[in-house]
Amino acid sequence: MSEIRNAALAPSGAKKIDWVRERMPVLRSLEEDFRKEQPFAGMKIALSIHMEAKTAYFATVLKSGGAEVYATGSNVLSTQDDVAAALAERGVEVFAWHAATEEEYTHHLRCTLEAGPQIIIDDGGDLVNLIHNDPSLRDLLPGVIGGCEETTTGIIRLQAMDADGALAFPMMLVNNAQCKFLFDNRYGTGQSVWNAINKTTNLIVAGKNVVVAGYGWCGKGVSMRARALGAHVTVTEIDPVKACEAIMDGYNVLPMAEAAKIGDVFVTVTGCRDVISTEHFALLRDGAILCNAGHFNVEVNMEALEAYAVSKEEKRENIMGYLLPNGRTVCVLGEGRLVNLACGDGHPAEIMDMSFSIQALSAKYLAEHAGARPAGQRTIRVPAEVDREVAMRKLRYMGYAIDTLTPVQEKYLGSWNLG
Amino acid sequence: MSEIRNAALAPSGAKKIDWVRERMPVLRSLEEDFRKEQPFAGMKIALSIHMEAKTAYFATVLKSGGAEVYATGSNVLSTQDDVAAALAERGVEVFAWHAATEEEYTHHLRCTLEAGPQIIIDDGGDLVNLIHNDPSLRDLLPGVIGGCEETTTGIIRLQAMDADGALAFPMMLVNNAQCKFLFDNRYGTGQSVWNAINKTTNLIVAGKNVVVAGYGWCGKGVSMRARALGAHVTVTEIDPVKACEAIMDGYNVLPMAEAAKIGDVFVTVTGCRDVISTEHFALLRDGAILCNAGHFNVEVNMEALEAYAVSKEEKRENIMGYLLPNGRTVCVLGEGRLVNLACGDGHPAEIMDMSFSIQALSAKYLAEHAGARPAGQRTIRVPAEVDREVAMRKLRYMGYAIDTLTPVQEKYLGSWNLG
Amino acid sequence: MSEIRNAALAPSGAKKIDWVRERMPVLRSLEEDFRKEQPFAGMKIALSIHMEAKTAYFATVLKSGGAEVYATGSNVLSTQDDVAAALAERGVEVFAWHAATEEEYTHHLRCTLEAGPQIIIDDGGDLVNLIHNDPSLRDLLPGVIGGCEETTTGIIRLQAMDADGALAFPMMLVNNAQCKFLFDNRYGTGQSVWNAINKTTNLIVAGKNVVVAGYGWCGKGVSMRARALGAHVTVTEIDPVKACEAIMDGYNVLPMAEAAKIGDVFVTVTGCRDVISTEHFALLRDGAILCNAGHFNVEVNMEALEAYAVSKEEKRENIMGYLLPNGRTVCVLGEGRLVNLACGDGHPAEIMDMSFSIQALSAKYLAEHAGARPAGQRTIRVPAEVDREVAMRKLRYMGYAIDTLTPVQEKYLGSWNLG
Amino acid sequence: MSEIRNAALAPSGAKKIDWVRERMPVLRSLEEDFRKEQPFAGMKIALSIHMEAKTAYFATVLKSGGAEVYATGSNVLSTQDDVAAALAERGVEVFAWHAATEEEYTHHLRCTLEAGPQIIIDDGGDLVNLIHNDPSLRDLLPGVIGGCEETTTGIIRLQAMDADGALAFPMMLVNNAQCKFLFDNRYGTGQSVWNAINKTTNLIVAGKNVVVAGYGWCGKGVSMRARALGAHVTVTEIDPVKACEAIMDGYNVLPMAEAAKIGDVFVTVTGCRDVISTEHFALLRDGAILCNAGHFNVEVNMEALEAYAVSKEEKRENIMGYLLPNGRTVCVLGEGRLVNLACGDGHPAEIMDMSFSIQALSAKYLAEHAGARPAGQRTIRVPAEVDREVAMRKLRYMGYAIDTLTPVQEKYLGSWNLG
Repeated sequence: MSEIRNAALAPSGAKKIDWVRERMPVLRSLEEDFRKEQPFAGMKIALSIHMEAKTAYFATVLKSGGAEVYATGSNVLSTQDDVAAALAERGVEVFAWHAATEEEYTHHLRCTLEAGPQIIIDDGGDLVNLIHNDPSLRDLLPGVIGGCEETTTGIIRLQAMDADGALAFPMMLVNNAQCKFLFDNRYGTGQSVWNAINKTTNLIVAGKNVVVAGYGWCGKGVSMRARALGAHVTVTEIDPVKACEAIMDGYNVLPMAEAAKIGDVFVTVTGCRDVISTEHFALLRDGAILCNAGHFNVEVNMEALEAYAVSKEEKRENIMGYLLPNGRTVCVLGEGRLVNLACGDGHPAEIMDMSFSIQALSAKYLAEHAGARPAGQRTIRVPAEVDREVAMRKLRYMGYAIDTLTPVQEKYLGSWNLG
Repeated sequence: MSEIRNAALAPSGAKKIDWVRERMPVLRSLEEDFRKEQPFAGMKIALSIHMEAKTAYFATVLKSGGAEVYATGSNVLSTQDDVAAALAERGVEVFAWHAATEEEYTHHLRCTLEAGPQIIIDDGGDLVNLIHNDPSLRDLLPGVIGGCEETTTGIIRLQAMDADGALAFPMMLVNNAQCKFLFDNRYGTGQSVWNAINKTTNLIVAGKNVVVAGYGWCGKGVSMRARALGAHVTVTEIDPVKACEAIMDGYNVLPMAEAAKIGDVFVTVTGCRDVISTEHFALLRDGAILCNAGHFNVEVNMEALEAYAVSKEEKRENIMGYLLPNGRTVCVLGEGRLVNLACGDGHPAEIMDMSFSIQALSAKYLAEHAGARPAGQRTIRVPAEVDREVAMRKLRYMGYAIDTLTPVQEKYLGSWNLG
Repeated sequence: MSEIRNAALAPSGAKKIDWVRERMPVLRSLEEDFRKEQPFAGMKIALSIHMEAKTAYFATVLKSGGAEVYATGSNVLSTQDDVAAALAERGVEVFAWHAATEEEYTHHLRCTLEAGPQIIIDDGGDLVNLIHNDPSLRDLLPGVIGGCEETTTGIIRLQAMDADGALAFPMMLVNNAQCKFLFDNRYGTGQSVWNAINKTTNLIVAGKNVVVAGYGWCGKGVSMRARALGAHVTVTEIDPVKACEAIMDGYNVLPMAEAAKIGDVFVTVTGCRDVISTEHFALLRDGAILCNAGHFNVEVNMEALEAYAVSKEEKRENIMGYLLPNGRTVCVLGEGRLVNLACGDGHPAEIMDMSFSIQALSAKYLAEHAGARPAGQRTIRVPAEVDREVAMRKLRYMGYAIDTLTPVQEKYLGSWNLG
Repeated sequence: MSEIRNAALAPSGAKKIDWVRERMPVLRSLEEDFRKEQPFAGMKIALSIHMEAKTAYFATVLKSGGAEVYATGSNVLSTQDDVAAALAERGVEVFAWHAATEEEYTHHLRCTLEAGPQIIIDDGGDLVNLIHNDPSLRDLLPGVIGGCEETTTGIIRLQAMDADGALAFPMMLVNNAQCKFLFDNRYGTGQSVWNAINKTTNLIVAGKNVVVAGYGWCGKGVSMRARALGAHVTVTEIDPVKACEAIMDGYNVLPMAEAAKIGDVFVTVTGCRDVISTEHFALLRDGAILCNAGHFNVEVNMEALEAYAVSKEEKRENIMGYLLPNGRTVCVLGEGRLVNLACGDGHPAEIMDMSFSIQALSAKYLAEHAGARPAGQRTIRVPAEVDREVAMRKLRYMGYAIDTLTPVQEKYLGSWNLG
C-alpha cells in the first residue's frame, strides 16, 4: 500500500537507520518502554517528516507503541528513497518519493490523512492545514485527539489559527520545549552550519571575517562555533538588547551596510527576509561567501541577486559564483536554502534524539489525555515533566548523575516561594 | 538633616563617585535628560541601596530630575561612610552609617519613609515591608505612586504580597528586565566572582578543578569565566535540563557528593541553602577553597562547618582555614557571604550602568503613569521600551550602530505574526 | 610527453585549480613577480607532490618563473586525474595517474628526474632517494643545485643522509619554516581533522568525550578545535612537560589505558606507532570512533585490530565497524589513514598558500645561490627573511598592517643584545 | 647577623610563607629530598631575590639541603619586611629592607657575596655583575662553582659577558627552561595581569577593546585571558609571523597608531621601550587605561607622558589620571611599572613552584658537577632531565599519570631517528 520509488533500495536505507538508531539512546529507551506499554494501541498516527534516517527511526518508535503509522515527506527535496523503502519494509505505510511534483506531494499528504489518524505529527503545518481546509477531509477532524508541531513556522501558523478559533484539536508546541530549542538551535545549528560550509568550501575559518546576521539562539550557536574555529565574528542585529549581548560576548556589531564591506563569509539566521539584498551586493568583497541557515531561502535575496548579477557559474558543487557589475564575484552556497540541509546532512542524531523524544512523549501525552479536550486555547505547551524526563534519560545514557533536593532544602525553597 | 558618620569624609567619597560616573554613560545621559525634563519635579523619592559609589551616583541622577531624594543603606556592612558623606554634600538626604545596629538600621529606613515619598526604590523589600506593616507609616501608603525592586529576593516577597492582595501600590520588577538579568548575572557575577577569588587567594586558576554549584545565569557566567581562565570545570545541578546544557557546553557534571572529592575551588550559585554541608565536609581535598556567590550566606552551611571543625585559623585576609577531624584543612572565603562583595568591590560600574538606568527609567515611567493605578496585579514588568531604550543608549556610547527593518521586512514579519 | 590518464578531464581539473588559485593570494603575488623576474629561466625543476589542485597551482607558479617543470604524484591514491590533465594542459610535464602500480609509480618518479633538473621539490624524500641510489640517475647529481623537502618524514631521512655525508646537494627544510609548521600543523590540521570527522559521521561534538593522543602542534590544534566544538577533551602524552601544558590549557590528561575506557572519539597525532593497540581494544566503549591524523596508518594498529575483531562491516562511507569479542563495536574512519586526507579534502587553500610560498621562495633562494654550494652541513634552514616575506605578503592580502621599530627602539634593542 | 627592618614582624611573614608553601608541592618534595641527600652540605649560597613569600620559601628549601644561605632583595620596592623577618628567623642570613637607598641596596648585595658563596642565584644579574666588577670581591670568583639566572634581562647580560669571555664561572639559564617560560609567561603573566587590572580598576572586561602590544609568550597569555573575559582584543606587533599567528588565533591586528584610537585598555608586553609614546597620546580615547607587563617601566613612555600632560591626579589607588592638552584624560596603572607586581601580588604560587624547582635542581646540578668547569661557553642550558623531573613531580602532585613508550615504540622511533 506504501507509495515509494523503489523497494529494492531498502538495504541501503536500513543501514542508515541503524547507524542513527545507535546514536539515539533516549528514543531507543522509549522504543523499549512503548513496546511494553503500548500507549498507541489501536490508534493511527499520521506523520509529515523529512524522510531521512533520524525521522524514519522516530516513525518506527511510534509503531513500536502499537500505532499504525502513516508517513509522508515534509519536503520533496529532503526525501531519501532508500530510507522510504526501508521504512516501508519495517511496517510503516510510506507515501513519499524524492522530487515529487506539487500534485504528488499533496496526494501523499492526503494518503496519510485518509487513514483517519487520532494523532498528527506535523512539520511546518501542511497536514494540519490540509485536514482543516480540504472539504473531503474535514469529516476526519472529530477523530483527531491532537497533534504535535516541530517547527517555529508551523507554530506561528497554529497560533494564528488558534487565535481565530479555527483550530479543531489541541496541538502541542514541540519547538518550544526546552529540550528542543535549547539544544537543536544552539548546538545543532551551530555545528551543522559549519560542517556544511567547511565541507562545501574546504576553506580555513581561522582568521576569516565571518558575519552572522541575527543573534537569537541559532545566531548564538553559529557565532560561538565560528569564533571557536578562529574566525573574527561580526554580528548584525535589529534588537538592541541582543546587540549588547553580542558585544559583551566578545563579538563586533555592525549594521549590515558596514558588515557587508568586510565579511569573508556571511550566515543569515534572522527569521526575516532580504537580510542581504540589493543595497548590499555592490559592497561585498570579491570572493565573499553567502549562506543562509535561518528561514526558507529568503534571507539572502536570491531573486534580487539573480537580477543584479551579470552572469553566474558553478565554482564547486553547491557553490554558485555570481559575477557582479563591479567585476567582483560572490559565491552563494546551496542556492540560499538552509545550508546545513542543502549542503550537509542536517542536525546530528544525538540532537534529534532529544527533539524526537519530546515528540514521542508528547504524542503519548495526547493519547493519555484523549478525553480531556480543552475548551479554550488549543495550542499547548509541552509539560515540564516531559522536558525533565527526556533530559534525565539523556543524562543517564551519557553516564551522568545529578543532585536531588534534601527535605530541608525543599522546605527552604518552598518558604521562599510562599513569601 | 542627614544622619551620617562624618561629613569630613566627603572628598574621598566624591572621588569614588566621580570615578564610576565616568564609567556610567547611559546613566550620565539620563542625568542630562532629567535635568531638562524634570520628570520628578515636586516629588519625593525614598531609596534603600547599598551605600557605595555606583548607587550614590544613581541617587544624584534621580535628584537631577527634580526629586527630593531620601536615601538609606540596604546593608549596614556595605555602607561606606565617605560615600554617604559625599552624597549628603551633593544634596541628597542620607540616613546611613557603616555597621549600624539593628535599631539604627530600622530608624534609618523610617527616616526615608517619613518624608512621605511618591516613589520607593527598594533593594530586598525592607522599605516596602516597613511602610505596609508599621502602623505609624501606613497613612503614607496612599501617597505612594509606586516603586521599583532590584533583587530576586525582593521580587519573591512582592509577588507573595501581590498574590495575597496586600500590595498597596504598583511595584516594577527591575530584576526581571533583560538589561538587568542578562548582563548583571552573567557578565557581572561571572567576572566579579573571579576578581574576588583571585585577589583574595592569588592562586592560579589554570589547571584547577573548579566546582560550580548551579547552572542558572550566574552559574553560566561563573563557569564560563572559570574555563576561560584555564580551569577544569564541574557543574552540580538539580535540574536535568540545565545539567544537559552544562554537558553540551563542555563541562563535567557530577552530584556534589562526587564533586566534593575532586574540587580545588567551589563556588555556590544555586539560590538554595546547604549546598555544601555536613555530608560533604569529610570528602573535601586538603586545602579546598569554598565560596558563595548566590544567596545570603547559607549556600555553604557555615553553621555546620563551625560545629564540625576542630579549630579555625585565618590564613590570609578574608580566608579562614577550618581544620577538620580528618586532619585536612578547608578554606572559606569571606565567611561564606557573597564573595564578590565580601572580598571584592561588587559589580563593575558599566554593568550597574545598565541596571540603574532601568531603575531610573522605571521610576520615570511610574511618575508619568501616576494616575493610572492598575486594579489587578500590582507587580509590573518593566516595559520592553525601557529595555530597548537602555540598550540603544549603551550601544551608542560604546560606539555601535544596528540595523532597522525596512518597510518590506516589517510587512513580512507582520504577515507572519498574523498567520 | 606527459603521461596522464585522460586529457579530456582537463576542464574539471582547471575549475578546481582556479578555485584554489583565488584563495592563494601570496602564491598569486609570487606568480606575478616570477613572471617579471624569471628566476628560473633556463632551469628544470622536478616535483613530487600530491597531485591535487593546490599543488598543481604551485607547479604553474614555478613555471611562470621560467622553469621547465616536471611533476609526478607523491602518493598514488591522492593523485586526481582531472587535475593532472589540467596541469598538463597548462604546460607542465606531468607523469602521474590515480592508483598507479608500484612499478608505474617508480617509472613516473624516474621520468621527472631524467629531464635533468637543477632543482628538486620533494615530498617525503622519494625523488632525492632515487637520484642518489639509482645508478642510472647518479650522473645527474652534479647538475642539481639543490632542493626543498616539505615533510617531517622527508626531513628525518635527509638529516640521516646528511649525517652520513651522503647528501650530494643542499636541501632546504621547508617543514621547519615558521610559516609552515606554525600554521599548517595547528590551524590546518586542527580544522581539517574535524571537517573530516564531522562530514563522515555527522555526529555532534558538543558533550562528547574526545581523546587526543599527542600534544605537539598538531595535537594542540586538534584539541583546541575539539573543545571549541563543545567536546570534553582528554589528552594522552609521554612527555611530562607537554602533559603539564595540556592540563594548564584546561584539558584532562590520562594514560591511554584509562582514556580508552571513556572516549567517544579518538584522534591520534603522536608520530609514533601502536598508540591504540591490542591492550586497549577490549576497554573501548561500544560505538567508539577511532581515527588518525598523525603518521601514515600505524598510530591505530589496524593490523592488530583486524586480527582481534570477530567481524567487520561498513557502517557508512569511510566508516568500518569492527565487532569485538566482547560484543562491542568500534568504528574506524578512513582505514586508519590520515583522516583529513582519507575522509576530507586536506588542508584549506589559505594554509597551503603559506607553505607553498615558502617552497617557491626557497626554490628561488636556491637558484640565486647556485654557485655557493656549502661545504659542511647540506640540510639548510629556510632563511628568516623568507618567513618574514611570506608573512608580510599574507598580512597585506588580508588587509593588515604592523608596526616598525623607530630608530630609538632599534638602538635600545641593539644595546640589549650587545649587553 | 641579618640586617632586617624589624624582627618582630616575623609572625606575619611566617603566615605568608606557610600559605604559599602549601601551594608549592614540587618544591616541598624537593625540600624533603634535600633534607635527606644534603646536596649543598658545606656550601654557601648567595641569593638575590624578590623578598616575598614564594622566594623566601625557596630560600629555606636550599637551606634544607645543607647550605648556608645568604639572601638579599633584588628590588627594594618588592621587599616585604615581615617576610624578611620570618626568613631570618628560619635561619637564613637576610640583608634587605623595604625601600632601601641605592647605597643600602649595594651594601646588602655585598653582604651576601662577602660570605664567599659557592653558588649564586641571581635575578637580573646584579650579584654576578658585582662580583666580577668590584675589585674587593674579585678574589672570591675562583670559589664560585656556578650560578643560576632567573630573568630574560639577566640572561642577555650574561650572554654578552660570555661572548666577551668575561664570565668567570658557568651560569645556568633558568629562564630558558621549558618549565619556566612555557608556564610563567603564558599562564602566570596571563592571569596575574588581569588580576591586577581588575583589582585596581573594578571595571568590566567583557565588551572592552583591549590592545595587547607584543605577541610573544606573555602577549599570547595576556590576549588569551582578555578574550576569555569577553574583551575584543587587538594585537600590535613588529614581527609579521607573530602578527599572522594573532590573526589566525582570532585577534585583530593593527599598528599602534591605529590601535591607539580604539583601545579602552592597553597592555604592553614587548620587551622594547616607547611602545606607547608621544605620537600616540593625542590619539587615545578619553578614559583609556594604560599599563605595562613587559619590561621595567619603559614600554609606556612615562617621561614623555609626564612632559606632555597638562596635569595629573590620582583617580583611585594605583591609578593616575593624566589630563592631556586635548582635554581627554588617560589613566596609568602602577606608574607604568609591571602591573602584576605594582598593582598585584605577582605570579601565583603554583607557577613559581615550577620555576623555583628548576632553580633548586639547577643549583643541585651545579653542586654535583662542581669539578667540571667547562672550557668554552659558560652560559648553560638547563638539562632536559631537570625539566622532565619537575614536570613529572608536578603531574604527580596534581594527580595525573602519563604514558611510557613500549619497547616496540622505542625501537620504531629509534629507527626513524637513524633514518
